[in-house]
Parts: sequence; structure tokens; C-alpha cells
Amino acid sequence: NSYRIASIPGDGIGLEVVSATIQVIEKLAKTLGTFDITFEHIPWGTEYYKQTGRYVSEDYLDSIRQYDAVLFGAVGSPDVPDHISLWGLLLALRGPLQLYANVRPVRTFPGTKCPLNTATNGIDWMLVRENSEGEYAGQGGRSHVGQQWEAATEVAVFTRVGIERIMRFAFETARSRPRKLLTVVTKSNSMRNGMVLWDEVAASVARDFPDVKWDKMLVDAMTVRMVAKPQSIDTVVGTNLHMDILSDLAAALAGSIGVAPSSNLDPTRKSPSIFEPVHGSAFDIIGKGVANPVATFWSAAEMLVWIGEKDAAAQLMGCVERVCAAGILTPDLGGSSDTQGVVDAVCLEVEKL
Amino acid sequence: NSYRIASIPGDGIGLEVVSATIQVIEKLAKTLGTFDITFEHIPWGTEYYKQTGRYVSEDYLDSIRQYDAVLFGAVGSPDVPDHISLWGLLLALRGPLQLYANVRPVRTFPGTKCPLNTATNGIDWMLVRENSEGEYAGQGGRSHVGQQWEAATEVAVFTRVGIERIMRFAFETARSRPRKLLTVVTKSNSMRNGMVLWDEVAASVARDFPDVKWDKMLVDAMTVRMVAKPQSIDTVVGTNLHMDILSDLAAALAGSIGVAPSSNLDPTRKSPSIFEPVHGSAFDIIGKGVANPVATFWSAAEMLVWIGEKDAAAQLMGCVERVCAAGILTPDLGGSSDTQGVVDAVCLEVEKL
Ligand SMILES: CC(C)[C@H](C(=O)O)[C@@H](O)C(=O)O
Ligand SMILES: CC(C)[C@H](C(=O)O)[C@@H](O)C(=O)O
Repeated sequence: NSYRIASIPGDGIGLEVVSATIQVIEKLAKTLGTFDITFEHIPWGTEYYKQTGRYVSEDYLDSIRQYDAVLFGAVGSPDVPDHISLWGLLLALRGPLQLYANVRPVRTFPGTKCPLNTATNGIDWMLVRENSEGEYAGQGGRSHVGQQWEAATEVAVFTRVGIERIMRFAFETARSRPRKLLTVVTKSNSMRNGMVLWDEVAASVARDFPDVKWDKMLVDAMTVRMVAKPQSIDTVVGTNLHMDILSDLAAALAGSIGVAPSSNLDPTRKSPSIFEPVHGSAFDIIGKGVANPVATFWSAAEMLVWIGEKDAAAQLMGCVERVCAAGILTPDLGGSSDTQGVVDAVCLEVEKL
Repeated sequence: NSYRIASIPGDGIGLEVVSATIQVIEKLAKTLGTFDITFEHIPWGTEYYKQTGRYVSEDYLDSIRQYDAVLFGAVGSPDVPDHISLWGLLLALRGPLQLYANVRPVRTFPGTKCPLNTATNGIDWMLVRENSEGEYAGQGGRSHVGQQWEAATEVAVFTRVGIERIMRFAFETARSRPRKLLTVVTKSNSMRNGMVLWDEVAASVARDFPDVKWDKMLVDAMTVRMVAKPQSIDTVVGTNLHMDILSDLAAALAGSIGVAPSSNLDPTRKSPSIFEPVHGSAFDIIGKGVANPVATFWSAAEMLVWIGEKDAAAQLMGCVERVCAAGILTPDLGGSSDTQGVVDAVCLEVEKL
């Protein structure tokens, strides 16, 4: 068990949180002695773009396929339009590598406080986002540019294959959790095509999972349920855009987007999966050394689970939780520690393992 | 000042809340004696559909254009697919009548409690939803139906005309409020066409409103801000789908969707505007007599403002707020009153005017 990980810090605080995480994981591997891990730095991002005119190398898909997994930081820069940077790097990986399952565990973490007084025991949800098509299919265009009658389209494309595979994945995820509860989110009252197909596929896949209790919700009503009845929710699946929105909301409701991890998985394991914090490049705090590394630690733990080091992942999360519970937190969580302070504290916990 | 209002109760609890509201408005008109108002019942809805095969009459647009305004209940029935019922009635009115501004005031109302402990003084926002195009343009289709490679599209269509008019309306709305603060919500990092056009039009319209302070947010990040920094928000504008989602969330965060009103406005006043509660037909409580009529009272107050009876609207809202503050509430708000109990209490307050 020796793993080669590609590290793509990207832009902004991506560099800070990925470097923080590599320190911690290397310390973990050394301390446990049960696996080997090496990180190879890949410089894709806005600097790379300014030098080469591309966010990634020409053979980027092949070169990324050599790795066991990818640890990703963030992409986005104030001097490049977001749709250029995001499609140049992050969205150029998710879709083309067919990382169709974006998994986002959300829970009230030690050191964070759930801002909802409807959730007395905090929040513990598992969000599954379709990650390869739908509203992110990339189709659409603009015509009559600049004319008064200019029209622009955004075309969401849903396929039966695409829906079926994420639905099976979601039902399996729900089945693996104690409550075996799945909510399928759509918007099939106003969207008559792809959303109705989602409903149909959900009903048909559900037949293979009689032990999973499932229900359907409209995306707007789902936000109400998340606020008013958080305890009624366990696993949730929805489209690329719907879950983009609901997962940010969920992280905020649980306590902080600063700790929220995400996994871009290819469940067929043909491509390496990508693990990244949910927060973005946060240019307002770059270079101040105060970026919260916890979301990236947690993402790396998810990566360890995925590559087969479940035990090491659990150990790591234990250390991170103890550090957060002890109040060693970055300013976004109300603490007074800097990034390196959190790294050092976690490394100290790791040494005790 | 004599007004003819079309009442379309529709389905489910729509019938109960519209009948409740007509009682209250008739009492108000009689008590104040400053205006005349008549409600004409229009039976469109699922029953009508079952009898005629259509949700509305053939000449429905012309027939609705005779009225000064429309008071709408809800549409949707468990035995008809939602996309049939909604496109049959509600969405057959909003777009074709060019009611392009959907206005949703959201505030923590007497008798409701804001579930967020980040909002010490409750919430007071004004949400403006583009209501005639975008994700609700109705384009798209399904091909290869039933085949494994079936594909379905949902085509969002944005026009410069459509964006510009809602943007002007939103800036004017923001200008009319004390804080003169507008947030423009888009998703222009992943959606490269219509969403980028939104950004461009926002920047250009903003130049005509130098006294309004505005900023831009991605829809996912906006949910985080709504939860974590509710006090930083005043007026918000966004697309048809984004604001559909954010307005439900906002109502839940403010305290209850049971009091949330909405106005479907044609600011050019060529078509009568439609006023409706945000909640739906709620078939689970139909016939129990416990539907919360407050959202429809508030919607009717917005209607009175729109047709020119601002003073009467303020008087009505005063009565409703006093009744709610006195704890005369339906079960959804933790009260033990039924719908008619709330109606009677409000009528009693009206008599005191
Ligand atoms: C940065 C952006 C393109 C991305 C998305 O919309 O998917 C982000 O919000 C996320 O949730 O991973
Ligand atoms: C019922 C439904 C079609 C409608 C919408 O999506 O617009 C509703 O959710 C609303 O917010 O008015």
C-alpha cells in the first residue's frame, strides 16, 4: 500500500490549505507506518494560465490518470472571469474524468455551532450530487450579442445513463447509513423534461432497494425542510446545480463552510477521484496565513478511505476533532489560531497515536 | 375607486385561504367605506380540468384582462402530475401575461420565530424574482424515450430585454427602501451564457442608480450569507429558478412559509397582476379547516397597495399583526386556532378601525 497522489493547490488559499494538509498526511503516514504516500505537485491554476494560455497541460487527462487520487485546493482569481477559470480547471476535470458522484458529508463539527435552534443535536447529513451533466453539461450560447433582442441559453442535459448511475450510488450510500433514508430532490413541477425523467428513474431504481426508505422533494421545499425539520433528513441526492446550492446551504446550517469536504468520485474506479474542500479560493484572505485547513484535512481523510486506508482516515479525523474541540481554530470559526497553528496542533495529536 | 378582482382559489387549501381572505377584505371595505371591491369567482383548477380537459378556459387571457387584479390560491393535486397542473394554470398566467416581476417580501412576522440565532432582530428582506423567462421558459424535450441512451433537456432562455427590465425594477425597489442595498444573484462561474449576460446587464443598469449600493453573489454562496450574515442583506434579485429556491429558504429562515406572500406584477400595468401565497395546495391538510390564511391576507394587502389603496392595506396589515401577536395562530405556527378563528379575530380587529 503505497500511493501516488497528485496535488493541485490551484489558486488563492488553495495553496495554503493543500500545503497544510500534505504536512499532516505525511506526518500521519510516518507515524502509523502502515502505508506510504507521496504527493506530486501539479502547478495548474491561474498563474499557469497566465504563462501558457491554458489552465491545464495539453495531455492533462492522461497525466492525471497515472495517480491514485488527486488532492485539490481551489481555483478562481479576481483578474480572470470565473467562468474561464472554473471551466479551465475544475470543470475540465469533473466531467471529462466522469467523476459522476460528488459526495458531501455535512455535520456539526467540534468547534462549530449549528446556527439553527430547530436542530438540537446539530446536523448529520450525507449529500450526493450528480457531478457530470445536467446544468453543468456546458451547452448553450448567446446570439444577437449586444442587440436589444439578445438571447442567451443555458441548456441542462440529463441522460438516463447519467441519472441511473447517480441514483444507484445514492441508494447504496443511503443503505450504508444507519437510518437508510434517502430524499430525491428534483423540480419536476416547473421542469417538464429532465426533471420528470429524474422522477421516473428514481422510482424505478428504488424497486431494487426495498430496504431503503425514500421520498421525493422539490428543491425549493427542500430548503424549508432543511431549516424547519433538519432531523428528518439523512441522505440526499439531486442534480448538479440543485446540490451545489443545497450543499452550501447545508454546510452553513451545520455550522461552517470552512470545514466542509467534498469527494468527486468515479465509482467505477477508471479515473482517479478528486478530493477538495467546498470553500473556494477566498482571495480576500490570501497570504494572511489564516485559511482554515480543516475542510482539506477532512477531504484528505475521505481520500484515504477511498484509496483503502480507512483506519488511517479514522485516526486522522480523531486528531482533527480533538484539536477543534480544544478550541484551536482559525478566525472564521471564532478562534485565534493561524493555519500553521492548526497544522502543528494536529501533527502533535498525530504523534500521540 | 371601485375594483373588480378575479378570485382563482384553484386547488387544495387554496379554496380555504381565498375564501378566508375575501371575508376579511369585504369586511375591511365595508368598515372603511373608502373603496368598493367585488370578487368574481373563477373555477379554474384541477376539478375544472377533470371536467373540461383544460385547467383554464379557452379565452382565459382575455377574460382575465378585464379585472383590476387577481387573487390566487394554489394549484396542484395528488392525482395529476405537477408539471401538468402548474403549466396548466399558474405558469400559463405568469409568462403569457408578462407578469415579469415576482416580488416576495420576507420578514419575521408577529407570531413567528426566526430559527436562526445569527439574526437577533429577525429578518427583513425584499426578494425580487424574474418571473417570465430563464429556467421557466418552457423549452426542452426528451428524445430516445425509454432507451438506455435517452436524453432530456431543460433549456433556460434569458433575453437582454427580460434581464434589463427586472434589473431596473429591482434597482428601483432597492432605492425605495431605507438601506438602498441590492444583491444580484447569478451563477456565472458555471453557467457561461445567460448568467454572464445577467452580470453584464447588472453592471450597466447599476450606472443609472449611483445611489444604490449593490453587489453580486453566486447563488450557492448566497445561501451561506443568508444563514451566516442575514443582517447584511436587504433587496435581492435573481433568476426565476434561483429566486424560487432562495425565496422558500428566506421564508423558512424568517420564521414560516405559512405567512409568506407574493405578487406577480406587470409593472407596465398592461395586464392585471396576480397575488398569491407562497405555500402550495397542501393536500395533507385540506378540509381540516386549519390552513393558515395569513399569507393570503398579506398577499391581498400587497394587492391593495398595487391597485391604489395603500392606506387600507396598512390598516389590514395592522389588524393581522395584532391578531398574530395575540397568539391567535393556526397549528403550523404552534397555535390552536382554526382558519375561521383567525378570520373572525381579524374581522373583529377590522371592526375596531
Ligand atoms: C466553483 C464552482 C464552479 C463549484 C460548482 O459550482 O460546482 C463550487 O461551487 C462547488 O460547489 O464545487
Ligand atoms: C408551484 C411552483 C411551480 C412555483 C414555482 O416554482 O414558481 C412555486 O414554487 C412558487 O414559488 O411560486
